[in-house]
Amino acid sequence: LDYQHVQVPFEITLWIMLASLAKIGFHLYNKLPSVVPESCLLIFVGLIMGGIIYGLNDRSPPVMDSDIFFLYLLPPIVLDAGYFMPSRPFFENIGTILLYAVVGTIWNVFGIGFSLYGICQVKAFQLQDVSLLHNLLFGSLIAAVDPVAVLAVFEEIHVNEKLHILVFGESLLNDAVTVVLYKLFRSFCEMPTIKSVDVFAGVGKFFVVGLGGVLVGLSFGFTAAFTTRFTKDIRVIEPLFVFLYSYLSYLTAEMFHLSGIMAIISCAMGMKRYVEANISLKSHTTVKYFMKMWSSVSDTLIFIFLGVSTIGENHEWNWPYICFTVIFCLIWRALGVLVLTFFVNRFHVNTITSKDQFIIAYGGLRGAICFSLVFLLPDFHRKKLFIAATTVVILFTVFIQGMTIRPLVDLLAVKRKRESAPTVGEQIHIRFLDHLLAGIEDISGHWGQYYWKDKLEYFNSKYLQKILLREYDQPKSSIVLLYEKLERKHAIELAQAGQLGHGPAHPSFLCSAFLCSSSDRTVITDQKLEDAPNPDVLDNMQEILARNLYRIRRTGPAYNRHTLPGDSEPTEQAKEILILRHKSL
Amino acid sequence: LDYQHVQVPFEITLWIMLASLAKIGFHLYNKLPSVVPESCLLIFVGLIMGGIIYGLNDRSPPVMDSDIFFLYLLPPIVLDAGYFMPSRPFFENIGTILLYAVVGTIWNVFGIGFSLYGICQVKAFQLQDVSLLHNLLFGSLIAAVDPVAVLAVFEEIHVNEKLHILVFGESLLNDAVTVVLYKLFRSFCEMPTIKSVDVFAGVGKFFVVGLGGVLVGLSFGFTAAFTTRFTKDIRVIEPLFVFLYSYLSYLTAEMFHLSGIMAIISCAMGMKRYVEANISLKSHTTVKYFMKMWSSVSDTLIFIFLGVSTIGENHEWNWPYICFTVIFCLIWRALGVLVLTFFVNRFHVNTITSKDQFIIAYGGLRGAICFSLVFLLPDFHRKKLFIAATTVVILFTVFIQGMTIRPLVDLLAVKRKRESAPTVGEQIHIRFLDHLLAGIEDISGHWGQYYWKDKLEYFNSKYLQKILLREYDQPKSSIVLLYEKLERKHAIELAQAGQLGHGPAHPSFLCSAFLCSSSDRTVITDQKLEDAPNPDVLDNMQEILARNLYRIRRTGPAYNRHTLPGDSEPTEQAKEILILRHKSL
Repeated sequence: LDYQHVQVPFEITLWIMLASLAKIGFHLYNKLPSVVPESCLLIFVGLIMGGIIYGLNDRSPPVMDSDIFFLYLLPPIVLDAGYFMPSRPFFENIGTILLYAVVGTIWNVFGIGFSLYGICQVKAFQLQDVSLLHNLLFGSLIAAVDPVAVLAVFEEIHVNEKLHILVFGESLLNDAVTVVLYKLFRSFCEMPTIKSVDVFAGVGKFFVVGLGGVLVGLSFGFTAAFTTRFTKDIRVIEPLFVFLYSYLSYLTAEMFHLSGIMAIISCAMGMKRYVEANISLKSHTTVKYFMKMWSSVSDTLIFIFLGVSTIGENHEWNWPYICFTVIFCLIWRALGVLVLTFFVNRFHVNTITSKDQFIIAYGGLRGAICFSLVFLLPDFHRKKLFIAATTVVILFTVFIQGMTIRPLVDLLAVKRKRESAPTVGEQIHIRFLDHLLAGIEDISGHWGQYYWKDKLEYFNSKYLQKILLREYDQPKSSIVLLYEKLERKHAIELAQAGQLGHGPAHPSFLCSAFLCSSSDRTVITDQKLEDAPNPDVLDNMQEILARNLYRIRRTGPAYNRHTLPGDSEPTEQAKEILILRHKSL
Repeated sequence: LDYQHVQVPFEITLWIMLASLAKIGFHLYNKLPSVVPESCLLIFVGLIMGGIIYGLNDRSPPVMDSDIFFLYLLPPIVLDAGYFMPSRPFFENIGTILLYAVVGTIWNVFGIGFSLYGICQVKAFQLQDVSLLHNLLFGSLIAAVDPVAVLAVFEEIHVNEKLHILVFGESLLNDAVTVVLYKLFRSFCEMPTIKSVDVFAGVGKFFVVGLGGVLVGLSFGFTAAFTTRFTKDIRVIEPLFVFLYSYLSYLTAEMFHLSGIMAIISCAMGMKRYVEANISLKSHTTVKYFMKMWSSVSDTLIFIFLGVSTIGENHEWNWPYICFTVIFCLIWRALGVLVLTFFVNRFHVNTITSKDQFIIAYGGLRGAICFSLVFLLPDFHRKKLFIAATTVVILFTVFIQGMTIRPLVDLLAVKRKRESAPTVGEQIHIRFLDHLLAGIEDISGHWGQYYWKDKLEYFNSKYLQKILLREYDQPKSSIVLLYEKLERKHAIELAQAGQLGHGPAHPSFLCSAFLCSSSDRTVITDQKLEDAPNPDVLDNMQEILARNLYRIRRTGPAYNRHTLPGDSEPTEQAKEILILRHKSL
């Protein structure tokens, strides 16, 4: 037995296997996932696993490594989120999302930090050694709403599209703010004195980190699109480029201390339309499928690890500090949402209702990002207290808020996502209004979103498409493409319903496939099918025949000299053959 | 800049990117791959890369780590080979393949080992310090035909199926023999005295290592098939299980010092038919696509690394030893094939022609497996000589043999793979003969391959399918499935040829899709389409409309008060709008 040799890949594979099997297990009982969110169940599995490891080894189970989280588990989830981001609602609400993500997060950080510092001044709580800077540092990591946790809960409750994108968009875009504030306060903690220049440099960093991430992402995204122009002869490695370039954008951004999340999101959103046009249909299916698969496994692993890491002796318990952390997190977020929405609603016709505001505030779940950040803290004597408080906040938000948000959404009758996709009629009207508004904006000289959208679309078709698309020279009209797509779908449906068989074309085809000697080609050409039955069809038939024709012999044992057809069961037959064989030997 | 932090994933991603880009590069020039095999080009790229690294750093570039090769690069290739193994020719020729793989490899090992020992006795060559055991150890690693190299070359030359499977099957199955002999001689080298018991234990190990690998593989394969019974509700992680279980089988076998290659091949072959029946069509596409993608990237990386690792100061040059190694490799392989084929042909009706024998002998390419094994050797004073000899043999076989095998196949007019798949008529006749032969075998009491095939098929449908397949209870008749498949293909073809439009069903469908308000449902039900246009269709239309309808505005600027439709170019229009805007401001 040589376990050392294969340990690393073996354990990784086993963890992924555990995650996948846990997922299967939950879905076997249909009722469970409808009551408890999957994330809670996974944390629970993790807790049990952690308990077992703790019980067996008698020491704390290994905590989730922050590097593993940030380098390997987070990128697939964010890539998936960016690639499948509904771009229309996202860009329509980008202003509001940015306001929540930037101003809201800063508000929360300072709110939580200062009020916890206030708590620390109460002598009875024995917390006077926690400085203001440490409290602000803690605030900066605990204020970050977690995209993984938000996605896990909101994907199951199906609130309306706008509400979903507001919460989810905020959780994604606050990464830049969190990273900057966290690093700022951490470096302040290590500095002897803080100059005002440092504070201003910190403010400037917001823009560098956020916009830098977006730029890195877009440049990798366009390079990816450009690369897929040349993959026509080796379709099989097309999906790889989508993953490689996205991941490189993330790593590059992280390398330069920019926001990796912003980079990978803008990379995915930037490349999507061009890559999809360049790669084959099968490659596209593979890309989509693998992205979903990876993000779902990463997500599962993160929650299991969260559970495992909770068990152990890393915690210092201080009731007041932990309780007030939870309370302040709730209060400051609620206040922030209220105040910010007040301003947002003044400038928008389509306002955010008070029910929506409640769900936005309540949906601010914390997750693995806080957890990884708290473990990344430099060692100081109260680190274990921070770890305990973070763990409690995460468990509180994921379990209590995550489990009650669905009943609350029902109770408040929050507007749900519409069940069906908008009809084509609606689609056409929406588009028509877009054009109308773009025209009105143009004429009135108001440079609003429709104006910019139009400009971008123009730039795209004038320059980007020519560079990034392979078959830009002879583009098919969109209406022809749509028609072809519908025809294909329709044909498949008809075939499945068995209605195609009544037409004249069908029997000749089946017959031609079965009797495809060269003399039969006339039949085919008569039916105006240009090619002979193609090799694929034959290949499939071959496979099916190979698998099934063999059974014929067992059901009709015609070669047996001693029984009449039909009167011998397989077992009898086997016995008989054995007797025969003995004789012949 | 924080490069340390992201170094590992960043460099891995960059290597994979380099490999993918190199692949794209070769395919851009269509003529190159038809003359030079891709493997040679990749080694060449590797040599250049190695030269650059050597030139810049002034020290040897890093050699390919044997662990990386055996744990990460080899499994995808072998998995792909096992999963797409044509099972009929493989099992038809299993006896011959095993003879080549076991007896042939032992023959080569001892032949090369003893004759090199003879060379070492010549005083002029200054090789008298290389013992017999060291020569046998070297023989055991240099005798291994490499599946990766064989696959890379034989995939391009399209020889007939039997010849292909003989060479490729041998290269896969000789793994067990190579591993055993290599480990045996290595342990003998470290022992003070060798007892005859050890030799017998070594012979016994063949069976343990080979059959053990097969058993481990099959058990993981059946577990994988069983697991996919329960994935109906989470289709998205189905492909994962195929990869996880195969990889686990490989790692487990390696852990117990069994043959990992045999394990992963039997895992893949064992699970294939059940997994394919259980998982969805899209999952299946993803599995196939990703397997091909991974194996193709691994393959590329291996050859590039081979090139990179060649450069450097690891070599000790000794003309006679190196030249005689190449010569003995060629001679002993040729002799082995001749002798073994002589025996094989005596017991078979369908003999192996002398042309085929020549290609089998000539196609015994060495590759990365030898290379990794030679670096795994324990340090002794002549290790660098062995490394040099191995490198030369690999380069000789890949470059000289790999590049000349295609012209030789043309020159000898070796029977090629048939261009088209066998017709259904042929298929039916082949199957019919199978049944006939199985019957004859049964009656005559001869327990041949047809008898065993029949038994296996019976066991499969009686027990395995019931346990491993999800929908075994109501299996559709194979002929119905075939019919549905053909119908679907036919329908798509008709739709693509635009012939479906002449039927009566189509206009109503398109119309119903476009005007799908509830009042129009009558039209749909009239046409006996059971559902309303399904959400997928609408989703697609929505996407296409979203992308394209916007253009309408630019092509027909109807909102502009000052121009007649059609007489304004986009640029003019933009100028005009700018003037208007200036006025309004």
